[in-house]
Amino acid sequence: MKPDLPDVRQTRLDSYVDRYAARTKGMTASEIRALFSVASRPEVVSLAGGMPNIAGLPLDVVSGAVRDLVLDSGPTAMQYGSGQGDPVLREQICDVMRLEGIEAHPDDVVVTVGSQQAVDLVTRVFCDPGDVVICEAPSYVGALGVFRAYQCEVVHVAMDDDGVQPEALEQAIAAVKAAGKKVKFFYTIPNFHNPAGISLSLERRGKVLQICQDQDILILEDNPYGLLGFDGEPMRAIRADDGEGVIYLGSFSKTFAPGFRVGWAVAPHAVREKLVLAQESATLCPPVFSQFAISSYLSRHDWLGQVKQFQEMYRERRDAMLAALTEKMPAATTWTRPAGGFYVWLTLPAGLDAKAMLPRAVTNRVAYVPGTAFFADGFGSQCMRLSYCHPTPARITEGVSRLAAVIEEEFELRETFGPLPPGAGRDYDAPGPELS
Amino acid sequence: MKPDLPDVRQTRLDSYVDRYAARTKGMTASEIRALFSVASRPEVVSLAGGMPNIAGLPLDVVSGAVRDLVLDSGPTAMQYGSGQGDPVLREQICDVMRLEGIEAHPDDVVVTVGSQQAVDLVTRVFCDPGDVVICEAPSYVGALGVFRAYQCEVVHVAMDDDGVQPEALEQAIAAVKAAGKKVKFFYTIPNFHNPAGISLSLERRGKVLQICQDQDILILEDNPYGLLGFDGEPMRAIRADDGEGVIYLGSFSKTFAPGFRVGWAVAPHAVREKLVLAQESATLCPPVFSQFAISSYLSRHDWLGQVKQFQEMYRERRDAMLAALTEKMPAATTWTRPAGGFYVWLTLPAGLDAKAMLPRAVTNRVAYVPGTAFFADGFGSQCMRLSYCHPTPARITEGVSRLAAVIEEEFELRETFGPLPPGAGRDYDAPGPELS
Repeated sequence: MKPDLPDVRQTRLDSYVDRYAARTKGMTASEIRALFSVASRPEVVSLAGGMPNIAGLPLDVVSGAVRDLVLDSGPTAMQYGSGQGDPVLREQICDVMRLEGIEAHPDDVVVTVGSQQAVDLVTRVFCDPGDVVICEAPSYVGALGVFRAYQCEVVHVAMDDDGVQPEALEQAIAAVKAAGKKVKFFYTIPNFHNPAGISLSLERRGKVLQICQDQDILILEDNPYGLLGFDGEPMRAIRADDGEGVIYLGSFSKTFAPGFRVGWAVAPHAVREKLVLAQESATLCPPVFSQFAISSYLSRHDWLGQVKQFQEMYRERRDAMLAALTEKMPAATTWTRPAGGFYVWLTLPAGLDAKAMLPRAVTNRVAYVPGTAFFADGFGSQCMRLSYCHPTPARITEGVSRLAAVIEEEFELRETFGPLPPGAGRDYDAPGPELS
Repeated sequence: MKPDLPDVRQTRLDSYVDRYAARTKGMTASEIRALFSVASRPEVVSLAGGMPNIAGLPLDVVSGAVRDLVLDSGPTAMQYGSGQGDPVLREQICDVMRLEGIEAHPDDVVVTVGSQQAVDLVTRVFCDPGDVVICEAPSYVGALGVFRAYQCEVVHVAMDDDGVQPEALEQAIAAVKAAGKKVKFFYTIPNFHNPAGISLSLERRGKVLQICQDQDILILEDNPYGLLGFDGEPMRAIRADDGEGVIYLGSFSKTFAPGFRVGWAVAPHAVREKLVLAQESATLCPPVFSQFAISSYLSRHDWLGQVKQFQEMYRERRDAMLAALTEKMPAATTWTRPAGGFYVWLTLPAGLDAKAMLPRAVTNRVAYVPGTAFFADGFGSQCMRLSYCHPTPARITEGVSRLAAVIEEEFELRETFGPLPPGAGRDYDAPGPELS
């Protein structure tokens, strides 16, 4: 916010500016999105995007599945369907969740337009303006955007290498309650966190659940990456130990493909009913063809074998990124070491600002997402998210090398000219879907 | 509302009941939905559902299109896409709208998850709780559900056989303004209205537009049925004469198939930008695979020839319904004569209540939607919506015949026992997606 510089451009061009809802006032396109249209040029190594690498999908299997779908059950697959989602797919979703220890009934599953829509619907059902949502620090940019759209107040809770800190969570809940505000839920990404790249340890899961049960706080467990771990079996979901206090969100976007836009929520029975009504109001029903296509893929193909291939591919890229970081980065730079998922969270040497540095990085043909995007309050300017999901290992190595050179140069500039004024780069930034 | 009968069942079963947002309080499943699960039995003739009859679609063309889509551009078609929607599809959408006189630029089109989501996003962008939306009387149940979910106040404006009455619209706007409230938009379905089955005459379109321009009221023109007229060329859209004061909504659900969930909004430039940001927050992006599939169908197939086949099929059904109504209905019953679309709006003899009569109708193996579903204020109890889109002409004739018998019987009962107490059946009812 720059109160001394009214947005003249917008007032002039938008004759509707006085008619929008209060929630719309905060909806503005991020400046860094303009930068990313440059970053999408092929000579730039983008470590910014969170798009899964789906080149390995068996196109023959999928093409056969969708062809047969039309020929065998076209009039049903192309018709309106249930607002809750296809019953067969909901059974298959229960099978998928069983891999993480969840025993859920298909009746408690609601299919959504990607798990993004699940975050939207849960927030719609629970949050009035001013209600508090507790999030990790940092948190998923797409969820923060939803909470902002519903005019929630976000309170961040510190993480370390084992995930969110239970004591900090307790303190945050106490502080919010002391301020007379309502905590509507604790939003967490326990596995291979976006953007932090770390997982909530098993021991902590128990503690976090206990705290939330004691304080009567609902947990919103967002788990798009849970099956994309590089070591051993999937971790046990928080939802596996509490069917009443947890809403669990899953997605096929990373284990299969995002273009069908199919995710889901599993919720306590009464909440599930509200979510279905909210879904019907929002879309009448989630895309039936997409649901049938995924259902057919799951039953025709060794989909879990495909997930293992994805794991290997992402592991190779993670290794390339960590090796390059170790080799190239200046001493005062630190980063997380993900055991799965897509992201590394990097912290710059003190005095450097990731957002201020971004134009220089793009000029040097490497892109990332500044850390401020993952905080509701402008923090995170010393950090950035690096994605290893999409580029080849060689490109990742090259990108990290370019980034290290930019950081070195920026560090020297700061040594010469002094740090930026405090608060510089502390705007809220929400990159678009291509970066989520 | 029955203030003397607290909903004990809900308080007992739903431990979250005190934690929902204010908007969620009104989200309850309609009683008549339970009835409709009975109505879906094959022996019942359902004149209730609004599902298009897509049995005539060329399955070979569609199956080839989706197969090739995966083989030729799978990694793109199954990936995340633009929040605004695929640029090629947006160009094709502009071609479709040109049939109704609209000259729009693809940049001003936002693809949505069915046009239902377009209503949701427009309301999200414009409406604070307490804002007024002006609707026709009756209006589309799915839109009323959205307005309710955003805690809007709905003001209905009377229609006659030429559509909404301009004088009544003017008076409604004046009354709302005099009460110190804000009208955010006028929501209208100008063609083959759901549920009224009538169209806004060309002359009235000019008047309505002029009134809204004079009063600075945005028009939300919802047009899913515009190409499904039975006589001559499509009518000129209101949006064709004003690109700044009208948001136009379109859909492929009735001209192709609803299961892909692809609709769109065309909006003034600044509003379009807000809609894209709202779409990204709601779903990241609309389903890419669905968009590509429709794009491919449109370019591979004589889709407009297919629409003409749909017109013929629906015309035959409309004729069957009107003939049966003329032949069978008691004298004091009246109904509209649609020139396109799916619906006839029937008004019962004075003293009869369509909702109260529904259980008896279902027992007699015919179903309809009571008129109360199409009003935000409980009116419409003397009316019902009859759909001719799905059953065969023979089933329609049989259904109308059964319905006429039920009305006759009900009429005799009322003659014997007197009318229901005033206000009976005046609950708000929102049937689910299968009935929209």
